[in-house]
Amino acid sequence: MTNHDMKIGFTAVVRVEQSRQIGTFAKIADAIARVGGRIGAVDVSQATRHSAVRDITIEVSDEDHLKRVVDAISEIEGTHVVDISDRTFLAHLGGKIEVVGRIPLNNRDALSRVYTPGVARVCLAIADDPSKAYTLTAKANMVAVVTDGTAVLGLGDIGPFAALPVMEGKAMLFKEFGRVDAFPICLDTKDVDAIVETVVHIAPGFGGINLEDISSPRCFEVERRLIERLDIPVMHDDQHGTAVVILAALVNALKVVGKKLEDVRIVILGIGAAGGSCARLLLSAGAGDVIGVGLEGAYVRGATYDNPMKQWIADNGNKDARSGSLEGVVKDADVFIGLSGPDALSLDAVKSMAKDAIVFAMANPVPEISPDLAEPYVAVIATGRSDYPNQVNNVLAFPGIFRGALDVRASRINEPMLLAAAHAIAGVIGDDEVLADYVIPSVFDKRVVEAVSRAVSSAAIESGVARKRMKSEEAVRTGSA
Amino acid sequence: MTNHDMKIGFTAVVRVEQSRQIGTFAKIADAIARVGGRIGAVDVSQATRHSAVRDITIEVSDEDHLKRVVDAISEIEGTHVVDISDRTFLAHLGGKIEVVGRIPLNNRDALSRVYTPGVARVCLAIADDPSKAYTLTAKANMVAVVTDGTAVLGLGDIGPFAALPVMEGKAMLFKEFGRVDAFPICLDTKDVDAIVETVVHIAPGFGGINLEDISSPRCFEVERRLIERLDIPVMHDDQHGTAVVILAALVNALKVVGKKLEDVRIVILGIGAAGGSCARLLLSAGAGDVIGVGLEGAYVRGATYDNPMKQWIADNGNKDARSGSLEGVVKDADVFIGLSGPDALSLDAVKSMAKDAIVFAMANPVPEISPDLAEPYVAVIATGRSDYPNQVNNVLAFPGIFRGALDVRASRINEPMLLAAAHAIAGVIGDDEVLADYVIPSVFDKRVVEAVSRAVSSAAIESGVARKRMKSEEAVRTGSA
Repeated sequence: MTNHDMKIGFTAVVRVEQSRQIGTFAKIADAIARVGGRIGAVDVSQATRHSAVRDITIEVSDEDHLKRVVDAISEIEGTHVVDISDRTFLAHLGGKIEVVGRIPLNNRDALSRVYTPGVARVCLAIADDPSKAYTLTAKANMVAVVTDGTAVLGLGDIGPFAALPVMEGKAMLFKEFGRVDAFPICLDTKDVDAIVETVVHIAPGFGGINLEDISSPRCFEVERRLIERLDIPVMHDDQHGTAVVILAALVNALKVVGKKLEDVRIVILGIGAAGGSCARLLLSAGAGDVIGVGLEGAYVRGATYDNPMKQWIADNGNKDARSGSLEGVVKDADVFIGLSGPDALSLDAVKSMAKDAIVFAMANPVPEISPDLAEPYVAVIATGRSDYPNQVNNVLAFPGIFRGALDVRASRINEPMLLAAAHAIAGVIGDDEVLADYVIPSVFDKRVVEAVSRAVSSAAIESGVARKRMKSEEAVRTGSA
Repeated sequence: MTNHDMKIGFTAVVRVEQSRQIGTFAKIADAIARVGGRIGAVDVSQATRHSAVRDITIEVSDEDHLKRVVDAISEIEGTHVVDISDRTFLAHLGGKIEVVGRIPLNNRDALSRVYTPGVARVCLAIADDPSKAYTLTAKANMVAVVTDGTAVLGLGDIGPFAALPVMEGKAMLFKEFGRVDAFPICLDTKDVDAIVETVVHIAPGFGGINLEDISSPRCFEVERRLIERLDIPVMHDDQHGTAVVILAALVNALKVVGKKLEDVRIVILGIGAAGGSCARLLLSAGAGDVIGVGLEGAYVRGATYDNPMKQWIADNGNKDARSGSLEGVVKDADVFIGLSGPDALSLDAVKSMAKDAIVFAMANPVPEISPDLAEPYVAVIATGRSDYPNQVNNVLAFPGIFRGALDVRASRINEPMLLAAAHAIAGVIGDDEVLADYVIPSVFDKRVVEAVSRAVSSAAIESGVARKRMKSEEAVRTGSA
């Protein structure tokens, strides 16, 4: 499959009524197959002597494709499309999250405990010692997923309303994978000052802040200022979550080719949110040479850039000060990491890389180079897509990172914690298990979140940002005990 | 019971180990009874030949009382208090709410529907038409419970952290009674401008805003400005929820005494958040004369007051321009509504009221006058307490008001909707069922929220603020259908 369009495949359920006299299901199946639809299931929902109504589940590649399928069915004599349901849209109907009570509230006794008058005693206990909010409220496990909707998936600035489904999905992933309660906060402002002030103002109820889909370079300042202002962990996942999983994948990919991180030359194309953080983390992890490349070519020491992250990588990476185009610096490079756009890396460029090249083509849904094209010329290839091996997916990182940070009540998420998370993800695959198409564990591998959270908690303790040592809930007693 | 202290009763579980040789449980029971503790249950948690460990559930009136109970037990020879658990605090451990996904997320197919890549199509549908956020996200059913922690219960300005347990409790009540998802937002600012800006910025993800426990008179400006700025319902519950339930109670209380709203003289003591809204709503409902009274005495036309709500009631109420002290204006009044503080109404003042007086003494936990004292001299008495008949409790109003507003996607909560809510609450008790001690339905009466939400939806439609007529979820189809 080398699908280079912005197509997003999905499954639809088409309800078809067919006269028994003149139609047969075989005709419908033929029509669907003729236009490339794939039938997943057929359920008869109603049948009379005269007609049959069937719900046909069909995989299509995009909405135009669905339209062609429906048209093909409708053209059959005696056949009528009654209804089209889109399973993706149906899954979103009414939203994907809800806020529920953790204890029943069905009698006077319970009501007077969780609300007035009993709750007043709990309020006073926190007023006396605000840190008790961590044990007596949901704060300790609650993360705000904050966006301004300016860089949502690959869709760009689609605004806070259109960003909501992604943030709700993220909240679901936090809960499902990390047992973290997460709540979407979609901001109706793009102003950096306003974003910072708003998040500071709503922070008391949260144990952590996950910044999401905020465009670069604004995201750097928003994150930096919030880390300064708040005493809870703040992490822009597009930067650090991605960087962590890429480092994890690289650690294992280097095992496959028998090279060392300090010896290889790494070229990163696209120094946006993810690329910048990736460069920093790789250098912190001990990478010998990391060259950042953008539309301007390679970022090189001594030059001046308008974007602080590009300036940083120019000043701190590219040890031999290689300048010029991507094609120039990628020649003889050991590792290419693409965090840019579709088809940004030519096959000739891949062929020019060092022996046993490693290519991470992360642009989504269309990678920097098609894995099918590159595969014969590289030792390891990874993408952001689920339909190829080695999917670099943030879901491997953020639930465990926040779980680990919250468990020890960390005041921030620092570099040692991110490095620990990356090595924990890599370590889930044993040295004797690592394969060219298995450098990253599956997102459904239950060991990942446990390994990551433990490693992150330990790193938080060792680096002095943990405010609580034990994971177990503290005993809560009254003042009179 | 005429308990005039700020006592909040609760239940504790005291774990007691007792030597079998020298102790008996009767001695423990005696000791507890001697200091006024009430044993609710006794569970043996461990027993050996030498000793028994019992968990004794004991009702106490406050924390000092618990200490006396524990001391009394400890003084018994051969008896040792191992542990004291406080059920109220235990109920709060880890917080009272959680955020959960509405659909399972345990396989690749589900993941690709609720998150990438499938979610992108839903995002694009909302980007094309932002109103689709109402059907394709949790917005339509999500209410922010917003406070700055400045007027929490009767505890005053205890700050955003200490306010959290109340807001979580409120979120539980929203879900339990109104099927509304509600999320606490505790603000780390008391600045009116900052509160307004913050709420405006986080509004996209919410279908409504419930302001809570914001001190007067700041609450009036916060609410007014948010109503102006937002296209979703904004309601300060301390103002309007209370006013709605008081009007409901008064409607039924007047039936008991056979008087009409337009004929009675009503004195309201305490023109804070609740008193001001109560005065407005009573006048809108057709009350003939409403006199506001504060520390300055009765608010009277022609005078100038620093508080906009006091000015409003001076200008719009008190039709005969009665001035002077509470004692003066309450003489021959038909209705007294106290929203002030403990013991603010003397028994002599009650005795001076008109025949078949109605007294609502709402100060909590200690009313303006003890119901036990007043009862012989009034026809109907109501309080804010659950241990007397006729409890005026906001839980009767806010879940149904927001349910009704959200169901028709109202752009605001206006006076016709509040009046409809009040009459719906009153109407749950049939004319032939109304009694002096049954003018308000129980908070556990399931008919209330249904009656209120239906009435509020209808009023929203009639008053032109509804943006959706039907309660049923809309069909969601792809653009290709």
